[in-house]
Amino acid sequence: MAQIIFKISGSPDVVIHANKGDRLLDIARDANVAIDAPCSGNATCGKCKVKLVSGVLESPKTQHISDEEYASGWRLACVSKVADEDIVIEVPDIASAYKSRMKVADLSSPEEVAIFEKIKADIEESGIALTNDMEVIEVTMSEPSLDDTMPDNERLVWAIQEAAGVEEVKLPFFVMKKISTALRDANWQIKAVIKKTETGCFVYDILPASEAVRAVGLAIDIGTTTVSAVLINMETGEILAKGSAGNGQIRYGADVINRIVEQTKEGGIRKLQKAIIDETLNPMIANMCRSIGIKTTQIYRLSLASNSTMNHLFMGINADPLRMEPYIPAFFHLKDIVAKDLNLIVNPSAEIIFAPNIGSYVGGDITAGTLASGIWNSEESSVFIDLGTNGEIVFGNSDFLMSCACSAGPAFEGGDISCGMRATDGAVEAITIDKETMEPTLSIIGEEGQVPVGLCGSGIIDIIAEMFRCGIINAKGQIIREGRRVKVDEDNMKSYVIAFKEDTGSVRDVEINEVDIDSFIRAKGAIYSGIISLVESVDFDMTMVDNVYVAGGIGSGINMKNAVRIGMLPDIPLEKYRYIGNSSLAGAYAMLLSNEAEEKVSELASSMTYLELSTHPGYMDSFTAACFIPHTDIFLFPSVQNMED
Amino acid sequence: MAQIIFKISGSPDVVIHANKGDRLLDIARDANVAIDAPCSGNATCGKCKVKLVSGVLESPKTQHISDEEYASGWRLACVSKVADEDIVIEVPDIASAYKSRMKVADLSSPEEVAIFEKIKADIEESGIALTNDMEVIEVTMSEPSLDDTMPDNERLVWAIQEAAGVEEVKLPFFVMKKISTALRDANWQIKAVIKKTETGCFVYDILPASEAVRAVGLAIDIGTTTVSAVLINMETGEILAKGSAGNGQIRYGADVINRIVEQTKEGGIRKLQKAIIDETLNPMIANMCRSIGIKTTQIYRLSLASNSTMNHLFMGINADPLRMEPYIPAFFHLKDIVAKDLNLIVNPSAEIIFAPNIGSYVGGDITAGTLASGIWNSEESSVFIDLGTNGEIVFGNSDFLMSCACSAGPAFEGGDISCGMRATDGAVEAITIDKETMEPTLSIIGEEGQVPVGLCGSGIIDIIAEMFRCGIINAKGQIIREGRRVKVDEDNMKSYVIAFKEDTGSVRDVEINEVDIDSFIRAKGAIYSGIISLVESVDFDMTMVDNVYVAGGIGSGINMKNAVRIGMLPDIPLEKYRYIGNSSLAGAYAMLLSNEAEEKVSELASSMTYLELSTHPGYMDSFTAACFIPHTDIFLFPSVQNMED
Repeated sequence: MAQIIFKISGSPDVVIHANKGDRLLDIARDANVAIDAPCSGNATCGKCKVKLVSGVLESPKTQHISDEEYASGWRLACVSKVADEDIVIEVPDIASAYKSRMKVADLSSPEEVAIFEKIKADIEESGIALTNDMEVIEVTMSEPSLDDTMPDNERLVWAIQEAAGVEEVKLPFFVMKKISTALRDANWQIKAVIKKTETGCFVYDILPASEAVRAVGLAIDIGTTTVSAVLINMETGEILAKGSAGNGQIRYGADVINRIVEQTKEGGIRKLQKAIIDETLNPMIANMCRSIGIKTTQIYRLSLASNSTMNHLFMGINADPLRMEPYIPAFFHLKDIVAKDLNLIVNPSAEIIFAPNIGSYVGGDITAGTLASGIWNSEESSVFIDLGTNGEIVFGNSDFLMSCACSAGPAFEGGDISCGMRATDGAVEAITIDKETMEPTLSIIGEEGQVPVGLCGSGIIDIIAEMFRCGIINAKGQIIREGRRVKVDEDNMKSYVIAFKEDTGSVRDVEINEVDIDSFIRAKGAIYSGIISLVESVDFDMTMVDNVYVAGGIGSGINMKNAVRIGMLPDIPLEKYRYIGNSSLAGAYAMLLSNEAEEKVSELASSMTYLELSTHPGYMDSFTAACFIPHTDIFLFPSVQNMED
Repeated sequence: MAQIIFKISGSPDVVIHANKGDRLLDIARDANVAIDAPCSGNATCGKCKVKLVSGVLESPKTQHISDEEYASGWRLACVSKVADEDIVIEVPDIASAYKSRMKVADLSSPEEVAIFEKIKADIEESGIALTNDMEVIEVTMSEPSLDDTMPDNERLVWAIQEAAGVEEVKLPFFVMKKISTALRDANWQIKAVIKKTETGCFVYDILPASEAVRAVGLAIDIGTTTVSAVLINMETGEILAKGSAGNGQIRYGADVINRIVEQTKEGGIRKLQKAIIDETLNPMIANMCRSIGIKTTQIYRLSLASNSTMNHLFMGINADPLRMEPYIPAFFHLKDIVAKDLNLIVNPSAEIIFAPNIGSYVGGDITAGTLASGIWNSEESSVFIDLGTNGEIVFGNSDFLMSCACSAGPAFEGGDISCGMRATDGAVEAITIDKETMEPTLSIIGEEGQVPVGLCGSGIIDIIAEMFRCGIINAKGQIIREGRRVKVDEDNMKSYVIAFKEDTGSVRDVEINEVDIDSFIRAKGAIYSGIISLVESVDFDMTMVDNVYVAGGIGSGINMKNAVRIGMLPDIPLEKYRYIGNSSLAGAYAMLLSNEAEEKVSELASSMTYLELSTHPGYMDSFTAACFIPHTDIFLFPSVQNMED
């Protein structure tokens, strides 16, 4: 047995024992030490770098580790095996980037608030009432006596029948369990959080009448990478708190396929479910509730928008059939699930409203997002693109809706890119390059003085567009200029340095190399050809498209001009493009607040046609042609052809 | 800190550390060491005797410890405090008697089977159909393909709609969670356990069609002292297994009042609930299921008959208001509770059917038992007595039902009696005494060769009747003969020795003393005066009573002649008495199997009038008069007056 000490920035050391030959990544997982492994430990992504501080590891040098790095102790955890010796391992910040970067905020950026408010107004304008069946009522009872020995539950039911004007009153276990203490402590004056049903009412909670009681609901967007949520007042729609965190499952793989593979292993279903519920959602919920001074059991309803894999793993349902022909989900629509079925720390009777899936690769995030985009409510024809860890596209208008999914890979969220990272502190989210000097100007997420750590999706779009504009790369993505910023390694692979380690105090330069650029070009090609194929599948062409709504949390927004310039989005007038933020969360919010919106999403999902791109004639050709900057057919991009600045 | 080692017969030693001054009983409880403390540690019952093997305890000698016992190390755990020294404590068998004496059996005794079958036949004869809404159906689906991509839940719902001929099909979380694996593993041929509802059906479970699937239900009687249950086939009513165990709560007090006091302490509600659910029911359920080769999740419905305190503690509801004026339970009737609300290891969707309470001291055990007794279905007037840890009495016929509760105390289940014990291995359940020699002949529960350990309820009735018949005691319960079997202690208290320690190899004689007899006389007086008061409250007298049904698990049965002889039961012709075994469990069985029986019990409960004895005029006089053997008014007991054998 060898002793392993993990030193983690900002956390206490973790000490564990392991046998000779055990893999370091597995040991870390067992010890709950977070090491990012987007490729699920297959030695392909190079993200699981850790630093051997003392002792010896059996660890080969891989392409992801330079000689210099190897010499200073850097190793890939996924290919490192314990020897006979005790070791000390430093888990660096970049490696623990997956960690829930829990944020609870008033609606953080004004832009985001504005987007949210706009969507809400649009939905209401479309005729959908933003109202639901929940309310808070005051209930007063007479105190029992020897002459009035009615049991507590009948006394309460009687009083609620009076107060709410209903016949049938259902008291769930949660209320029954506290009833005798709650009624007496409140001196028989309570507030009840109820919902009206067809036959009467259901009582979620009873609280002292003296308290300021709100009917609170929680809308959640579970992305493959990032989880966001808003706590709302169900009676007014007011947003009470907002939270976001990394999806704790990320250590089991960056994309849905790797997650599914991981869940097929022994105990995997429980492990993946625990990572999202116990490790991600519950702490986030607790923080949000603390910020507004309520108990977590005062959340009485949840709505959830997520892709099909995410909602299967959330439920603890085997997701393996999603990735195997004939790609059958366990459900599209799902009803009658309540919080006590899962290990959520909200009120046990809280219903979970699922935005429906329409297939294995078009899930509830897209159906909810479609509602939020408003494309279903206009005679104008619009494209709605959700750039998440995968790219999903919906095209249509008030008459029809078509959808497809492109396996763009995780590039837009920083995966598959050597210095890629999620849109969190240290991420370069926007960039310009001086054409003359090739010196970059960076916009970095985080507080004043934050040093650049890596590139998030919007930063990657920018840097490729800028390198192309400045002639640093050619249409194939090859680096063709030389200078201080351009490095060439022993295998003759070139990279552009965004930030030198000397300037950041980091162990590595922040850079982008030709392999990264190549990965990204394939991702953007998939999106572009997906849009074109979907639009053309119903005999439209891009000139007939009135609007393109781009959603996703890849940064604070996308520079549309740059996205067109690199051929990721079609070259139509820029004013047709609109960034609509997190449409999935906005849709979940609408479904939570509004019974009608919930029905509408079901309706949209049922009417949406799915186009399977992989078997769609012409898609592969279209994709291949799009794997250039901007495209093999430059005439499709007149604005790029005439590019000046 | 002192180290305490508990040595427990048949279990590994338990080692724990404690501070000077800590009470031994509390330390044992913290360490989960079972020490019987029926009086809840108030130094009154003398049951918590343990033996100090080494070291020192600060422990006074009490009336419950003789000089000889004290010298050999016997101490009461409830008055013993830890000194500065390490100690070793032996926890004897009699002290750990509370321990779940788990039994799983084919219906054990033929008498019991006969009683059960008779009650079942009676109920059916009364016009109540022994049928319910559950069934097992076979369901076949077509395998999905690229041309048939319906998700799993829609495929299953569709097939069940066909197979069951219903519209709406509800799949709970339990089914959704396993659906994708279960359907594929079963090759799309399954059996579904369903219930038909007004609007469609609810699916409890899906299992491979190749398995022999039964719809299984569990009827439970939670007594204050003993828990019994039967597993049944819901489609046929067949009893598949039977189990019984001591109620794990017993270490927190022998009677309901002490349990309630205990649950008001910090963490007490959870502790008492855990004792019944996690420590008593779940192991019993697991054993029963193992005996018939099913998973515990294949139990799809439960019915529960228990007194009001037991069902409150089972639910984890604060029971304190039950014992405080104005004695208000949290509920009489309770609906919509399912197993997942509690920590039961059965199917999470299993409904729990509660036999309704009618007050704080007349609970579901009595309403279920009333159904089983059949007294509600006859023009003949009958008394139904349930001799549990308390005594409850119902009187009536098809026109009316009256009920009352006597605080008889736990004497009938062996409490309040120095050598009293529950009806389990080692208990003397029947006894005769030779009038000449005063030598007893014992009938002992357990295997051949079992030595007597104590007296259970039926044994106590017998010994008092026999001592009275043989002139060993007088009408006041004083011991008035002398001989080898009669001991006199230093305080001049006399006792009759049932078994000498020299003959049993035990540390103590099994004996009954004048204090015990006095306790018992008060208990039997309470029952007798309860019966008379209840019958007379509606202007009946005992000659107008056609039947007396006596229920309870106080032994294999009661010697009615002896019970009349000591004045516990009124002196009416013996053929009017019938022992009906565990009527509470029989009622729970009927409620489980039959939707109509469930309704009938609700109806009986709603129509039953409760007589509060403590404020009933004449009750106290009647009680005082009954505190003799057989009674102060011997003319009420002509058969005793003419007693010959």
